[in-house]
Amino acid sequence: MSDHKTRTDRIQRDIEELAKFSCVEGIGCTRFTYTKEWRQARDYVVAGMQAAGLKVREDPVGIIIGTLEGKDPSKPVVMTGSHLDTVKTGGRFDGIAGTISALEAARVMHDEGFVPERTIEFVALPEEEGARFGSGLFGSRAMCGKLYPDELNKYKDKDGVSFAQAMTEYGLDPSKAGETVRKPGSIKAFIELHIEQGPILENEKTDVGIVESIVGLRTFDVFVHGRSDHAGNTPLNMRADTFLATAKAICAGTEKAYEIGENTVFTCGYATVEPGAFNIVTKETHFQIDCRSKTIANVDRVMEVVKASLDRSCAENPGLSYEIREKLSMAEVPMNEEIKSLMEKEAADAGISTRRMFSGAGHDAMVMGSICDVAMIFVPSHEGRSHVPEEWTDYEDVQKGAEVLYRAVKKLASE
Amino acid sequence: MSDHKTRTDRIQRDIEELAKFSCVEGIGCTRFTYTKEWRQARDYVVAGMQAAGLKVREDPVGIIIGTLEGKDPSKPVVMTGSHLDTVKTGGRFDGIAGTISALEAARVMHDEGFVPERTIEFVALPEEEGARFGSGLFGSRAMCGKLYPDELNKYKDKDGVSFAQAMTEYGLDPSKAGETVRKPGSIKAFIELHIEQGPILENEKTDVGIVESIVGLRTFDVFVHGRSDHAGNTPLNMRADTFLATAKAICAGTEKAYEIGENTVFTCGYATVEPGAFNIVTKETHFQIDCRSKTIANVDRVMEVVKASLDRSCAENPGLSYEIREKLSMAEVPMNEEIKSLMEKEAADAGISTRRMFSGAGHDAMVMGSICDVAMIFVPSHEGRSHVPEEWTDYEDVQKGAEVLYRAVKKLASE
Repeated sequence: MSDHKTRTDRIQRDIEELAKFSCVEGIGCTRFTYTKEWRQARDYVVAGMQAAGLKVREDPVGIIIGTLEGKDPSKPVVMTGSHLDTVKTGGRFDGIAGTISALEAARVMHDEGFVPERTIEFVALPEEEGARFGSGLFGSRAMCGKLYPDELNKYKDKDGVSFAQAMTEYGLDPSKAGETVRKPGSIKAFIELHIEQGPILENEKTDVGIVESIVGLRTFDVFVHGRSDHAGNTPLNMRADTFLATAKAICAGTEKAYEIGENTVFTCGYATVEPGAFNIVTKETHFQIDCRSKTIANVDRVMEVVKASLDRSCAENPGLSYEIREKLSMAEVPMNEEIKSLMEKEAADAGISTRRMFSGAGHDAMVMGSICDVAMIFVPSHEGRSHVPEEWTDYEDVQKGAEVLYRAVKKLASE
Repeated sequence: MSDHKTRTDRIQRDIEELAKFSCVEGIGCTRFTYTKEWRQARDYVVAGMQAAGLKVREDPVGIIIGTLEGKDPSKPVVMTGSHLDTVKTGGRFDGIAGTISALEAARVMHDEGFVPERTIEFVALPEEEGARFGSGLFGSRAMCGKLYPDELNKYKDKDGVSFAQAMTEYGLDPSKAGETVRKPGSIKAFIELHIEQGPILENEKTDVGIVESIVGLRTFDVFVHGRSDHAGNTPLNMRADTFLATAKAICAGTEKAYEIGENTVFTCGYATVEPGAFNIVTKETHFQIDCRSKTIANVDRVMEVVKASLDRSCAENPGLSYEIREKLSMAEVPMNEEIKSLMEKEAADAGISTRRMFSGAGHDAMVMGSICDVAMIFVPSHEGRSHVPEEWTDYEDVQKGAEVLYRAVKKLASE
């Protein structure tokens, strides 16, 4: 039997080894799908899965699947894992933490000689980040039959290489991609461990996050149109100042997001003003809104306040007008309540502290939610940082999350 | 004796003729100092002054001075006029309205055979806009001994031609520029008519503005430093969001400017945010503030509120900090109270409506205020627009301002 120290060491070794499979040396980790580095990482994971007694195969889109056969192979399987690709000069934990925690669970089960009631699949997924071909969540979408029309030919990397070309070069047959689709009812649950990519667990010194749901998200382009006036000779009440109207809308939206709570966040990360001179009232302001919350209904409540603020500005300042264009809309995806409770109970039994929390980012589990029960475990991110070389989670923290994952998967596969 | 119609026609003719002396045909008016177009305009004005019986000379920096000698030449002179240069593709009224109104006053006095007690100088000034050499208010600064160190050699146009070279080519001797400086006490008053460049007179259907003072002005660069965080996974209370802090500061500053009144205006016309992605909290925001008011003390009151807002954001959001760098600071310049009252009385006698108002922009009169009494008359700007080809003032409106100018100058020169 393996103790916590042994498990932590194995996790650390795997994450450190995988971090080496990067096309840029020394600056974080860059591992795009179907590249040489991806193949090296695949070989490493495949070897690890085989050593853990799993039967390993690569599916038609390159999903690595290690199978621990159950006593009743006719029962829907339990699937766990995460992605193996990274963003450009990203960190070593995003995706990998979940992939390796799943592998570690397989190892512990192997050490124990555990034979599950239903089959367990340990997976490593491609192209979750979309960093190579520009369309993320690819592996889970492929399993759920949600590839975009002609995606494999249309989406290309920065050198113009299409998904299909890259798959062929890598050794896959793109014409068989459809075979990746899972039959309805064939998967009981998908459990994914991931780094939090936020500061909450670290700030609150909690070991593990049990994800309540993946938040609803809407993003918008807002264009405010007004008039260029002389900053000295135009009284405040005779202006159509687009940047001022924007500032008011941002304050109003943020205040509403605070008031609603429920993990509602409101972000304006992009803005341009025209003509952009210190002594000319802004004629045009273009800004973007990213609003997320426990429910998409909350997002709509925030946006009502933003619109009301802009409407007020337009009413008070003739010459002002605005347009809002929705860019993206994704409803919230709830995690399965029974699995959340199970994970909390297992964590408590193992002396691991937990808190419920929302995932503000999308993950493969979000897509998998369309065909099976899903659940996610978060482990702390140092300073909340992610997608940067400095991304960090202590290996002991990964192990605690992996322990909850192992216990939950084992229980789910024992039914 | 000339009636209003005749006077309006003469003003219209002059302004239309001068508008032809532009280096770009058909798109507004572009007349830079010491150019071929400038020389054409000069010749036109000189001929007009001579026809009005003035003794005309060009001073060492190219100021055109038409003199109507007074009975007592030892008395300090009354000076009136404005500038003859334009911005690039500007309008036909900015500067010209004042130059031609002064010329029209000379014509009316000539028609009347008026001989003043003290000498009157009718002037057309160069390089007020700074559009050619980048340093404005040049003519008035030259008269007040306020040229910048080595200005004539240091300041160059876009082709690299210095002030001094251009003066030489034009026919002036730059080494004699110092002779332009007026002796202390030699000028009693400088009166300038100018277009308002704002919407107030038109909106209020008032004929003429009597400028209370030229406002105090401060401009600032503000740099807000924070932290890039994930828009989905970072709760609002754990962010260091620079654009949000900026939005709050802009709202607070604007509200304070409204509260203070006294023509206080607060403008943020320039802003950039970094990294500038819709789903990343802004790490850096750079914005600019232009704040003007009746008094510079009011500007400081607004800026205290802006700083307090930024301080509050920094206190509430660890990781936020900011710097404010002052770019420009100019104290208010009051216009002479006796001349303001005189102009109001003269306007009332002529059936011309007036209102006191502030000038939010700098003018030659502002500089002249350092060596003599100054006063300004504003005439309406259609839609407040200026420095654009569409800049417009009805000729009847220019004539009303010119009437007040003529009457006031006549009175002042009769003492």
